[in-house]
Amino acid sequence: MTTKPYTDLFARVRENRPLVHHITNYVTVNDCANITLCAGGAPVMADAPEEAAEMAAIASSLVLNIGTLNAAQIGSMILAGQMANERGIPVILDPVGAGATRFRTEMTRRLLDELEITVLKGNAGEIGVVAGAEATVRGVDSHGVSGDPLTIARGLATALGCTVAVSGAMDIVTDGKKALLVENGHPLMGRISGTGCMAASVTGVFCAESRDPVTATAAAFAALGLAGERAAAVAHGPLSFKVALFDELANLTPQDLAAGARVRTA
Amino acid sequence: MTTKPYTDLFARVRENRPLVHHITNYVTVNDCANITLCAGGAPVMADAPEEAAEMAAIASSLVLNIGTLNAAQIGSMILAGQMANERGIPVILDPVGAGATRFRTEMTRRLLDELEITVLKGNAGEIGVVAGAEATVRGVDSHGVSGDPLTIARGLATALGCTVAVSGAMDIVTDGKKALLVENGHPLMGRISGTGCMAASVTGVFCAESRDPVTATAAAFAALGLAGERAAAVAHGPLSFKVALFDELANLTPQDLAAGARVRTA
Amino acid sequence: MTTKPYTDLFARVRENRPLVHHITNYVTVNDCANITLCAGGAPVMADAPEEAAEMAAIASSLVLNIGTLNAAQIGSMILAGQMANERGIPVILDPVGAGATRFRTEMTRRLLDELEITVLKGNAGEIGVVAGAEATVRGVDSHGVSGDPLTIARGLATALGCTVAVSGAMDIVTDGKKALLVENGHPLMGRISGTGCMAASVTGVFCAESRDPVTATAAAFAALGLAGERAAAVAHGPLSFKVALFDELANLTPQDLAAGARVRTA
Repeated sequence: MTTKPYTDLFARVRENRPLVHHITNYVTVNDCANITLCAGGAPVMADAPEEAAEMAAIASSLVLNIGTLNAAQIGSMILAGQMANERGIPVILDPVGAGATRFRTEMTRRLLDELEITVLKGNAGEIGVVAGAEATVRGVDSHGVSGDPLTIARGLATALGCTVAVSGAMDIVTDGKKALLVENGHPLMGRISGTGCMAASVTGVFCAESRDPVTATAAAFAALGLAGERAAAVAHGPLSFKVALFDELANLTPQDLAAGARVRTA
Repeated sequence: MTTKPYTDLFARVRENRPLVHHITNYVTVNDCANITLCAGGAPVMADAPEEAAEMAAIASSLVLNIGTLNAAQIGSMILAGQMANERGIPVILDPVGAGATRFRTEMTRRLLDELEITVLKGNAGEIGVVAGAEATVRGVDSHGVSGDPLTIARGLATALGCTVAVSGAMDIVTDGKKALLVENGHPLMGRISGTGCMAASVTGVFCAESRDPVTATAAAFAALGLAGERAAAVAHGPLSFKVALFDELANLTPQDLAAGARVRTA
Repeated sequence: MTTKPYTDLFARVRENRPLVHHITNYVTVNDCANITLCAGGAPVMADAPEEAAEMAAIASSLVLNIGTLNAAQIGSMILAGQMANERGIPVILDPVGAGATRFRTEMTRRLLDELEITVLKGNAGEIGVVAGAEATVRGVDSHGVSGDPLTIARGLATALGCTVAVSGAMDIVTDGKKALLVENGHPLMGRISGTGCMAASVTGVFCAESRDPVTATAAAFAALGLAGERAAAVAHGPLSFKVALFDELANLTPQDLAAGARVRTA
């Protein structure tokens, strides 16, 4: 496929520095903030019910991540999400650990019921659970799903009327009709905490500057994956890899992305 | 100006290792802990209402940061702040995002009303909002203030009876009468999350060992800025810069600070 | 002593990738997640009362850390701990800052009363406080204990019927009868935030695959300490040391551990 859209989109991101409002977990929140900056966005984290909607009202996209969810946070996610929907800005949902506990599964369903989600992003197990497939999630890791992930993702995207992204060795991004496969990435990305959360944040950054969530999400995954490939070349282990991952994404140019993105239509 | 006070103050910090109690946000809290250690202090984070005052009772300074404020945390800030005031230890307030939402603006006012703040530290937008100037804060970033930051800072310091520090390419520190300008720093400091929070923590460390908050705050900003200059020389991108920033601050000697501080009277 | 148990245990950890459920503080939680991965485990953090027990029900061990405790979290710790006890999986308790405030001391006692703790891990001050010895804890740092730490640890282990681990320049691990001394480590480990928390996480990983908590805890301390020794050789300061600490633990082989562990019977 042509890579022109990626060059233009990434250039726009870097120029406009979109504000990405996060309501996210306290484990990887710092990574989400820094990866947002490295991608070209401006992060803000605000989860108090007193200000969640007001912060969403000035943001360019909203990222909801249930990694350490509690009841109060769900309320703020609904408030922020409703404001985002009203304003028509993209909402990214990362259902971290859906399937591992009933609470996570049910709260994911509730967010999908009450909000219009633009991009639902998870690993194969999480997406499988949301789709009602037989899937196993242990903690926050996918331990397999029965059935073809692409078919499941397509079906779920059609049913929900949104874009579904499945992270993995090959990432899948689909709105039920169009489907893109992203081949960028490196196994070291699975050896640190937070890569999935970071992917959701970068997706929030790219979707903020695009009206095509499938392309924007694929571009986000390609950018992060490409940075991962470059980081792996200089890393001595998982944490020096992580430091380099941020550096490489920050140093990535729109031209680098266009040249290095390995995205194809399914 | 003479740099003798910086040498002495920094040497005292390193010798006494002051305990700095933080009630802060969950985004950059780890950075605050580590930068406190690198500066020469000992960090402790405790925000439960059951222990906030008791922890402040054994600390040498208190840092309040509203980056991810919620109602419960405000209560603990008041309790810890009252204890700090009673004991006469310095209280640093970082009104992160004041102006971005009414909640943050109002809670900043409440903290300023109910507590004696020693140093109010923010970016130009945040300080402008607190001062009642026309200022824009988008998320946690200053997007400009109308009027001269030094004049605004002086006026606010006089009105509040405290020291006001405005972070920026050139930092301003004033108690309304004396005003110091700190020129140390590097643009990469603005490309990672948490530099502002770290500056507040280092200010907490230095103020713990000084009776002159203007000098101590300028010394803190100069030390962090100088570490940033040195870190930039070895960095490959924002996150390797961040790692080096901590290393360089830890390796900075009182003599280095005295020799490298670029502080002048306004 | 023979190092064969370490080789076997570490190999088993790497093969089985045990899920370690953490209810921990928001300061070092990311470090706990990444060190768990580097040691060979899979971390999950979940502290909502709605899911704490259910997550513990699928985990291989549970780590409780009171570094930024609040009342809600205590309730979840009890729920998760009861499930862990019912299932017979190891529970590691890190009473961060016990002795610094009454809240921390009392909550530590409550957790010890209501749960069967497998390994109680703290610095000399914290363990001294729990044992009822004269001990001083300032913030989260031990400021000395009167009496011999080994004697205190032995007595406490016998009284509680669990394994007690005291971190320090020489770590002590004892169940009241057997006592092991671990000499691995490096002073730089005390210059970053979170080393103690990480030690508890690695202990959680190793204990998940062992029925001998004394040996497993000593192996965990030796592994982390050995990684620290190697990291110190390449570090330029505390934070590059921290990055290298994770890398080195991830790169450590069971054979490296067996060869480098400096553990002896007291």
